[in-house]
Amino acid sequence: MAQEDIFKKLIAHCKEYGFVFQSSEIYDGLGAVYDYGQNGVELKNNIKKYWWDSMVMLHENVVGLDSAIFMHPTIWKASGHVDAFNDPLIDNKDSKKRYRADVLIEEQLAKFEEKMDKEVAKAQKRFGDAFDEKQFRETNPRVLANQQKWDELHARFSKALNDNNLAELKQIIEDQEIVCPISGSRNWTDVRQFNLMFGTEMGSTADGALKVYLRPETAQGIFVNYLNVQKTGRMKIPFGIAQIGKAFRNEIVARQFIFRMREFEQMEMQFFVRPGSELEWFDKWKQTRMKWHQALGFGEENYRFHEHEKLAHYANAAVDVEYKFPFGFKEVEGIHSRTDFDLSQHQEFSGKKIQYYDPELEKSYVPFVVETSIGVDRMFLQIMSASYFEEELEAANGKKDTRVVLKLPAPLAPIKLAVMPLIKKDGLPEKAREIIDDLKFDFNCQYDEKDSIGKRYRRQDAIGTPFCATVDHQTLEDATVTIRHRDTMLQERVAIADLKGIIASQVNFKALFAKLK
Amino acid sequence: MAQEDIFKKLIAHCKEYGFVFQSSEIYDGLGAVYDYGQNGVELKNNIKKYWWDSMVMLHENVVGLDSAIFMHPTIWKASGHVDAFNDPLIDNKDSKKRYRADVLIEEQLAKFEEKMDKEVAKAQKRFGDAFDEKQFRETNPRVLANQQKWDELHARFSKALNDNNLAELKQIIEDQEIVCPISGSRNWTDVRQFNLMFGTEMGSTADGALKVYLRPETAQGIFVNYLNVQKTGRMKIPFGIAQIGKAFRNEIVARQFIFRMREFEQMEMQFFVRPGSELEWFDKWKQTRMKWHQALGFGEENYRFHEHEKLAHYANAAVDVEYKFPFGFKEVEGIHSRTDFDLSQHQEFSGKKIQYYDPELEKSYVPFVVETSIGVDRMFLQIMSASYFEEELEAANGKKDTRVVLKLPAPLAPIKLAVMPLIKKDGLPEKAREIIDDLKFDFNCQYDEKDSIGKRYRRQDAIGTPFCATVDHQTLEDATVTIRHRDTMLQERVAIADLKGIIASQVNFKALFAKLK
Repeated sequence: MAQEDIFKKLIAHCKEYGFVFQSSEIYDGLGAVYDYGQNGVELKNNIKKYWWDSMVMLHENVVGLDSAIFMHPTIWKASGHVDAFNDPLIDNKDSKKRYRADVLIEEQLAKFEEKMDKEVAKAQKRFGDAFDEKQFRETNPRVLANQQKWDELHARFSKALNDNNLAELKQIIEDQEIVCPISGSRNWTDVRQFNLMFGTEMGSTADGALKVYLRPETAQGIFVNYLNVQKTGRMKIPFGIAQIGKAFRNEIVARQFIFRMREFEQMEMQFFVRPGSELEWFDKWKQTRMKWHQALGFGEENYRFHEHEKLAHYANAAVDVEYKFPFGFKEVEGIHSRTDFDLSQHQEFSGKKIQYYDPELEKSYVPFVVETSIGVDRMFLQIMSASYFEEELEAANGKKDTRVVLKLPAPLAPIKLAVMPLIKKDGLPEKAREIIDDLKFDFNCQYDEKDSIGKRYRRQDAIGTPFCATVDHQTLEDATVTIRHRDTMLQERVAIADLKGIIASQVNFKALFAKLK
Repeated sequence: MAQEDIFKKLIAHCKEYGFVFQSSEIYDGLGAVYDYGQNGVELKNNIKKYWWDSMVMLHENVVGLDSAIFMHPTIWKASGHVDAFNDPLIDNKDSKKRYRADVLIEEQLAKFEEKMDKEVAKAQKRFGDAFDEKQFRETNPRVLANQQKWDELHARFSKALNDNNLAELKQIIEDQEIVCPISGSRNWTDVRQFNLMFGTEMGSTADGALKVYLRPETAQGIFVNYLNVQKTGRMKIPFGIAQIGKAFRNEIVARQFIFRMREFEQMEMQFFVRPGSELEWFDKWKQTRMKWHQALGFGEENYRFHEHEKLAHYANAAVDVEYKFPFGFKEVEGIHSRTDFDLSQHQEFSGKKIQYYDPELEKSYVPFVVETSIGVDRMFLQIMSASYFEEELEAANGKKDTRVVLKLPAPLAPIKLAVMPLIKKDGLPEKAREIIDDLKFDFNCQYDEKDSIGKRYRRQDAIGTPFCATVDHQTLEDATVTIRHRDTMLQERVAIADLKGIIASQVNFKALFAKLK
């Protein structure tokens, strides 16, 4: 099955099984905003717990924070977001549609790539095994002509972006004869900068209200609280502050389901270090974070590092942890050495001294910062992508059967145990509920009595429940149940008294944490 | 000590020990917005866990949801917030200061109350034990005169509010000769309605952006997802949907620390029932919720129900759970029978059918709703208020000593165990860390080696840590530590191997949940 088809199926699955709904769906939705359903919220909370506990509980020198979404507007001047957190937009005068100028040009680049790929595919078909793609690309005149166009456009585009030259972006669009996909016309406005922060007005005085922004990242909430946490927590460098919270970006082109949303959630940790030691800590956190991802068991080969070629103005090193999504390798986490840029800026803009007195060095300095930053929603999508399987099964009668199963790591699964009476009478429902009443204080249980046991297993597979326990007549006699394992589909008879121990050992986060040592 | 002094001390304590910081403090703060520090975030998360687990894990028929802050703007037309979620504001033309007209009048009412109270206090002082307050109030001419003024103003004010009569509010202010506290003048503008929702603009098209609001309550996110959750979760009425999330209100007069904030967090559960059964469920949830509060052990006498006299337009019953704060009995939770108002409104405004087919009744209907709604921040303040104690201690040398201790319920405490080497050498620090490394997977531990053991105990008392373990030279010989209990300050010698069991049984949420049965 093509990877895009898998992605479409996954999106449908998220809706059908209560993981992710389009926001305001009964009002025909709100663009690039999503809600988490009854199973989605449990998975999301478990992801957050995995991150939070591994950061805050397991590291003696990392503490938490929960700063507000509203912050003083000068913070976003200091961070550079007011002046530089922009997308270049252009309107087509005929269709009245608005586009990101950079995306239009990227799509033009992609067209040259497509043409080259088409030539390659044609030749490959003709020559079969004997085909040497590298040689073909280096010699075929049609490929070379397109490659030259690509190189020229790419160079010009990069320079325009670097120079923040909006007139040149427009000129490129005109020179490339790029047309509006709706109107087909080349009747474009000028390119203008559009800030991605959502603004609102706070308070109300006769003189007017205060213009504030919804934070576009949680990191600044940590920086402006650096002094408070360091002093009241008596923290010694090196130490970190971890935070989970919402952030907002008014994306014009929001894409790929929950991969890029206007309202999203971040898990960020800012680690404060002695100047000069930041690259050493950058390397340490790079390894620590990769281990955290790989501990989920989705295959080490599906992860890779992507070093940034071009660094942001505040960074002296940056790397992404990428995962192989159905639509290719994409970032799930960023690790950045942010230098002392942010704290220095806040020192300057606030007029407060933001320094650390280092008793060993016997001097004060502005700490350097290494950041680890994950989008919770993207992490959610990564885990759903990695867990979604369609399996062909051999049915009892020899016919083919299929099942959709979410092979979620057991500690992350929304429901840990489904308890099912074989039939809806003879005291079996009561016995099933009695088992749940004993176990529900330890982990999420679900009662299910509807349809055949086989159908109930499929439903639980579809939401990733690692264990099902069936209560039958034998249960009433010998206090045993059939326990069925999600991934192997194997069943075994166990004493009710042993259920808690068997399941708890698998669903406990300690099993995951043990892999982080 | 006066109750207000306790409240001031509590606010200072919250700052000093990393519970609550003023937002954007280094930029001189942002009005009525607060950040949670390294201890505050842990307490807040534990409060949320207590609520979430007791709602979702322990109730078979309650599931969770996490809907976005951004919602389709028509939702707030349907809910009534666009038209009626207003405060009446008035400006003083001389000071240019803006006030809530209703608050100005309430303050005027309070002045009459103060005058009466002053007369009563004077007489009480004169007559001593023989004083009969009731009789005095009913006969003293000065009290009676003020009571009459109060009654007249209160009646007129209530009517004006009820009629939403802004001109009459202004007339009252003029008739009462209310002056601006800044300018002292009576030069007022007209009273105007001011909507409490924060607005922003989403997206960007050539035709303009979509005006959206930051949700002023989380409840509507549940209502518009009712169909999705009911269908994909195969829920049968009666059932509930629980949600924790941020909400925003542009309060003009924000008061009492985190009691009323512009950005706050709610824990709301909407319970969907058969029409006609709502008052029965209202009573059930009323009892269930009171039990949940009282299970925290802060004294049943400090809680009471407050039945609403005047019901909101959507409700046919409403009650508050009130707690005795330092500034008096105040709401910590509201339980409301919201009828079918919200779902019916969304049915009308969305054009989608929002009904439930009841197989027992063999008919479809719009479900009725019983809501339970808590402000997380207010709950946080309630727990801090209830836990804060200043205790006088008999010191060893006979001198008086005091300690500040947060008697937090152990499952809610930010740190469960502090491990302290008696001195910073002889391998004691290493041994202490070894103990932490074994226990940190089970609960939050903190290492502390600075200052005397006594000082360290005080620091842990101040953040509510229920247990301290001291590692001394004997520890290296017989693998025991001294464990010290926060509330009793008693110490006992226990084996390191027993630590986990002793502490886990106290800090586990199951101990709280057991009280809810």
